[in-house]
Order: sequence, then structure tokens, then C-alpha cells
Amino acid sequence: MEQLKEKIRREGIVLSDKVLKVDAFLNHQIDPRLMQQIGEEFARRFRDEGVTKIVTIEASGIAPAVMAGLELGVPVIFARKHQSLTLTDHLLTASVYSFTKQVESTIAISTHHLSANDRVLIIDDFLANGKAAKGLIALVQQAGASVAGLGIVIEKSFQAGRQELEAQGFRIESLARVRSLEGGQVQFVD
Amino acid sequence: MEQLKEKIRREGIVLSDKVLKVDAFLNHQIDPRLMQQIGEEFARRFRDEGVTKIVTIEASGIAPAVMAGLELGVPVIFARKHQSLTLTDHLLTASVYSFTKQVESTIAISTHHLSANDRVLIIDDFLANGKAAKGLIALVQQAGASVAGLGIVIEKSFQAGRQELEAQGFRIESLARVRSLEGGQVQFVD
Repeated sequence: MEQLKEKIRREGIVLSDKVLKVDAFLNHQIDPRLMQQIGEEFARRFRDEGVTKIVTIEASGIAPAVMAGLELGVPVIFARKHQSLTLTDHLLTASVYSFTKQVESTIAISTHHLSANDRVLIIDDFLANGKAAKGLIALVQQAGASVAGLGIVIEKSFQAGRQELEAQGFRIESLARVRSLEGGQVQFVD
Repeated sequence: MEQLKEKIRREGIVLSDKVLKVDAFLNHQIDPRLMQQIGEEFARRFRDEGVTKIVTIEASGIAPAVMAGLELGVPVIFARKHQSLTLTDHLLTASVYSFTKQVESTIAISTHHLSANDRVLIIDDFLANGKAAKGLIALVQQAGASVAGLGIVIEKSFQAGRQELEAQGFRIESLARVRSLEGGQVQFVD
């Protein structure tokens, strides 16, 4: 997706060979118009998959997921990383290690909002080693629902996430695929 | 806002005299079309305020804030509650006690995205005692920016938040104002 790659080139900051900071438009400050374009692109790619729900994870997945949900006309569920007074019982849970936060955490979705009849599009901001994606897939499968595919805003293609998930048969659509961050430069696949 | 009140009546769950659970469309599952209508309503109410940025707080503020940002054509910043590898330096911070999570936490915004020239609309999902709102106001004021007002999705009018913030001179626009949750019934103001 060209607008996204252009935004990454202009406003992304390479912090190391593995860490790309996009706090200017996705992970801290959000560009709503770009999120709308991202939502439209996810909808275009998954339009024929019979998606009934979108599942994402707080916090950075919410904006692109809601825009995709608006375009596809389906509800969005965001998995919680932290316990809340109002989210207490009937939980599906999975354990996820966060690379950027360097902590293991439990993610949770209420059983009330996901059923065996659902066909789920999983959306997330980044795909690196695939830990968050696998956690979300585990939650969807615990509910007996099927996974229509994964929509990723930025993929770090030099890490193993895509390869492992594709080997398990999942369809992955990443809107920007980063081949390398070496030398402080963002190089895209293609 | 009538669509919102209707949604609260139909899908809100009264957990106690003080806690209203709206996990079905705002705090866990999100209704994207309703969020769009909420964003349009915030934009309508604050259109003439010269807003340059929207500030909210992760996670439940993000969806309504991004829709309002789309409509007003301005970027959205979400304050972080948790430390991230990519959000490390040049932080504005404030301390906030969360009623629903019953923990004190530090919220943070990077100085990179907020300047003294900004006029900020603060958006949040709930206003109860005003702790989160005051934390966000403190962050905006630390940046030297001005507060255009507060846009709240659901106000618990039986708690002191609105009163205290209005006494400090802030404009508050709440799209649904809950007068009482007693007896398991949602009663709105008016």
C-alpha cells in the first residue's frame, strides 16, 4: 500500500536493526485519514471471505481494526491485556510475549462476543515473530470460530512470524512489508 | 445523542449502582458505525473551537477519538498507560487513579506530538469522578497547549467529575448523561 510505505519512509524512525518506531501515525499519534485508507484496503482484500467479526488487541490495533470494521460492516473485538472490573468472567485467555514491551502477558476475550458461527478477521499493527497473532488465533479457536485471515499494517518480514503462520495455513495480508532496517534504512519487500 | 442512549438501554449492563458495563459496543466489542456517529457528533459540537489535535487515553478512548479526528481532520494522540520500548524519552506524565481497574497508574504523552500552539479536544469513553480527564488536562497543559473542551461518550452524572471540571472552566460535551443506575435501571439526565 503506497500511501503507507510513503508515510513510513517520511515519519518512521529506525531505532535499531529490529525496531521501527511509528509513533507519529500509528502507535502513539494516529493519523485518522491513513487509518481509514488502511481500513478500506483490508476490506478490499477480505471482502469475499464472509467475515462476521474482527478481532484485534489493545491498543494500537484498535484504530485500523475499527476502520476495517466500518468498511466491512462488522463488529470489532479488542482483546484485553489487563484486567478490568467490567471484564471478569467467561474469558478465553492466551499467553503472549511482547517483543516491544519485553513482558509476558495474558490476553483475554469474553466468550459473550465470539461464537462458533463466527468467521474472524484478525487485525494487528505489527507482525514480527507472530506471538500476538498466535495468541489471537488461539482465542478465536477456543471460541470454536474460524480464522478468515490476518490483516497486518506493518510486517517485519525479516522475522519469522509470516513464515510460521503461513506454514499453519493462515492467509496473511500485510499492507507494508519491511525487508530490512539495517543501517538505519527502511527497505521494503519488492 | 439518541442512538447512543438507545444502545445503552438495549445492550448496557448495570453491574452495581456505580458501574455500567458497555462491553457490547464500546469497552470490549466496538460498534464501528456507532463510533462513526459519535465522531460526527463530537465534530459537530466542537467544529468552531479551532481544534488542532485530539488527545485520548488507551484503550477505550481510541475508537471514538479516531472517528472524531477523521471528521475534524486532525491527528489523535492516545496517552499511554504502560511503558513501551518505543516510547521512552521526552515524556509528559501524570498520575491517574482508575476506578474500574482500581489501580493508580502513570499516563504519558511524548512531547514530540504536542506543542504550545495546539488547541486540544480531549475525548474519553467515560466521565465519572474525572480522574482520567484531569490527568489528560495536566498533560496538555504541561505541553503549554490549550484545552478546547472535553468530549465524553458516557457521563455518570451522579459522580463529581463534570461539576469539578466545569468549576475549573472547562467545556464538557457528554453524548449520554446517566443520572442514576439504581435498581439496575439506567436513567438519563432530562
